[in-house]
Amino acid sequence: MLDVADVRAARERVAETARRTPLEYSHTFSERTGAEVYLKLENFQRTGSFKIRGATNRIATLSPAEQEAGVVTASAGNHAQGVALAATRIGVDATVVMPEHAPISKLKATRTYGAEVVLHGADYEAAAERAHEIEREEGRVYVHAFDDEAVMAGQGTIGLEILDERPDVDVVLVPIGGGGLISGIATAIKARRPEARVIGVQAEGAASAADSLRKGSISEWEHVDTIADGIAVGRVGDLTFEVIRERVDEVVTVSDSEIATALTALLERSKTLVEGAGAVPLAALLSDAFEYEEGETVVPALCGGNIDLNTLTTVVMRGLVETGRYLKIRTVLEDRPGALRRLIDVLAENRANIYAIQHDRTSRDIAMNAAEVVIDLETRGPGHVEGLVGDLRERGYEVEILV
Amino acid sequence: MLDVADVRAARERVAETARRTPLEYSHTFSERTGAEVYLKLENFQRTGSFKIRGATNRIATLSPAEQEAGVVTASAGNHAQGVALAATRIGVDATVVMPEHAPISKLKATRTYGAEVVLHGADYEAAAERAHEIEREEGRVYVHAFDDEAVMAGQGTIGLEILDERPDVDVVLVPIGGGGLISGIATAIKARRPEARVIGVQAEGAASAADSLRKGSISEWEHVDTIADGIAVGRVGDLTFEVIRERVDEVVTVSDSEIATALTALLERSKTLVEGAGAVPLAALLSDAFEYEEGETVVPALCGGNIDLNTLTTVVMRGLVETGRYLKIRTVLEDRPGALRRLIDVLAENRANIYAIQHDRTSRDIAMNAAEVVIDLETRGPGHVEGLVGDLRERGYEVEILV
Repeated sequence: MLDVADVRAARERVAETARRTPLEYSHTFSERTGAEVYLKLENFQRTGSFKIRGATNRIATLSPAEQEAGVVTASAGNHAQGVALAATRIGVDATVVMPEHAPISKLKATRTYGAEVVLHGADYEAAAERAHEIEREEGRVYVHAFDDEAVMAGQGTIGLEILDERPDVDVVLVPIGGGGLISGIATAIKARRPEARVIGVQAEGAASAADSLRKGSISEWEHVDTIADGIAVGRVGDLTFEVIRERVDEVVTVSDSEIATALTALLERSKTLVEGAGAVPLAALLSDAFEYEEGETVVPALCGGNIDLNTLTTVVMRGLVETGRYLKIRTVLEDRPGALRRLIDVLAENRANIYAIQHDRTSRDIAMNAAEVVIDLETRGPGHVEGLVGDLRERGYEVEILV
Repeated sequence: MLDVADVRAARERVAETARRTPLEYSHTFSERTGAEVYLKLENFQRTGSFKIRGATNRIATLSPAEQEAGVVTASAGNHAQGVALAATRIGVDATVVMPEHAPISKLKATRTYGAEVVLHGADYEAAAERAHEIEREEGRVYVHAFDDEAVMAGQGTIGLEILDERPDVDVVLVPIGGGGLISGIATAIKARRPEARVIGVQAEGAASAADSLRKGSISEWEHVDTIADGIAVGRVGDLTFEVIRERVDEVVTVSDSEIATALTALLERSKTLVEGAGAVPLAALLSDAFEYEEGETVVPALCGGNIDLNTLTTVVMRGLVETGRYLKIRTVLEDRPGALRRLIDVLAENRANIYAIQHDRTSRDIAMNAAEVVIDLETRGPGHVEGLVGDLRERGYEVEILV
């Protein structure tokens, strides 16, 4: 099993390519939770996520002959970029196979970091198959994204950095996809501070590790579904599962809504951008998914920040809806002069700001002499939404809440 | 005129309420520009902007009798929050007048920081009038947002922090609205390092300070228009104009498109959220609005991060459009089986990813046997957009570019 000595040995290698990311006290989230919250901002890592740590340690510990032969991997996301930059920095040739419809931004980044990108297949599985063919054909070393001790040890350097700055840490919250990150971190933390709790967090729609722990053996999910694409993994690794079973105190789950809310809060309050997987540990804290005492030092490891900006706008919208600050309603007006103005007056009386109005008299679902209105509103919270909708209904408007 | 001794004296007072924000080396922007770029991350400041520095220095230097009487100000934005928190921390009572339709998030934040919020009037002018009435009625001290030496001195502490870490700084880029921030920073920088250039940056649509400098006297703009609402100010201050004339090397302007592009780049590459005004100094660097030598140390002062999340999604969309990574087109299909599929094939051949399709056969602008299609696409850059649109037109599609 992975040993803390491996993690310690990884440290210098990782320092060659990756940066030591800040551990920032968060006033906002401390106040909100009663814990002393320090955010490990791994979204500020080079390549935008922790993956460069593991990739570096793996590639740096290859034999000279293996380094000469080069490496290959498959990934649609952060691992691709981590391997690309780590390899370039160490001076090793890298080929990354990505599915054909990989986001253009990730494809471009991976090329910029110096890897040769091969586009192949409709999904990750097809890309991985091609990568294994290249492994055999060209004699390259396949760099697995998580189920590899050198990779796990590299990710574990995050745990050492947390301990450097907060030797008194009580809880570390870590997202789990394949389990590489938490295996490394738990190994580092438990070796020096066994009484600290290391808590894994999964998305409800991709909770195979939580499932596996409950059952006592690895449970594979055929179908995963979460906005946190970085941890949308159907099967925890064999090596990582062993470490998780031994060293992780608990694995909890959070919903997509909780993830969206946490991501939005980080953006709005901490002015920092994370991807879905990066928001997962904070989501666990904000949704009380585990127990902690007032005043305990809690470190959510915000593992990455590579989110497609279009996805971001969708997630932020959802976060605003979840916290009652965005409301989209449909209602029907009699189509006569002044009807829209009267509705707008009611909204103003309720102090809801209007973002957008669509007014349509041609909608086929409604009576000929009526008009349908769809309104986007800024609201102040769940209580405000409730009061506003109640008031509208009391005044005779049929209100349908769209989001 | 403001003296550097005032700025130095402000330092300890400011330290009581505000934090020393990070000065972060940016690998991305250094590579892109050839300068050594260090971002002053004032968006991480408490209350989300630099305004708390000036407000603190102003309120802390009031006489005991004035402090007893309390303060009042008018603001729809960052100054409101800065005054609220500074006053609360120092133990002084604060009233903030905000226009009636101020964004709910700012209203809420100002209240949370401990000020009494009075909603009054349709715009800033009406709110300011009411605030001056309260000043007279209640004997409170009015805290001006920029045209006040104690406020300017407080903002100048940013300049001292930059010099602490980069005594060799060559260029500091500072947004100008009313001029308080740059007056303080220029005073601090020029006192210790006169050869460093302090460059002011304004939005094209609110460039009264640039105008005033050219004319040699203050020029007031009746109408201002920019996405950078924090610096949408029509008139530079009298005190600040004197300092700017004396100590600022140059004032340049940037367009809303350049601001949107810089904001998007900061989010995507640096994982950090700024508001429009916060993106302005980086916009000047990325758009080559001033001259610098390869290897010079350039510090854009990213002054704040308080952007409404709905506004953010609009600005990000614009940033993606500007950089050719988002394309929305309208075209018309013959309404018969397979027409949409053929179009989608063309898009796939051109490797453009589809975000959304709206297909409408009821649009009244087109022939009966045709269907209108609006498509949102992810593209790779300006060249890709050009090639794709050209290919579609060559194949006989009428293409209208919507954004």
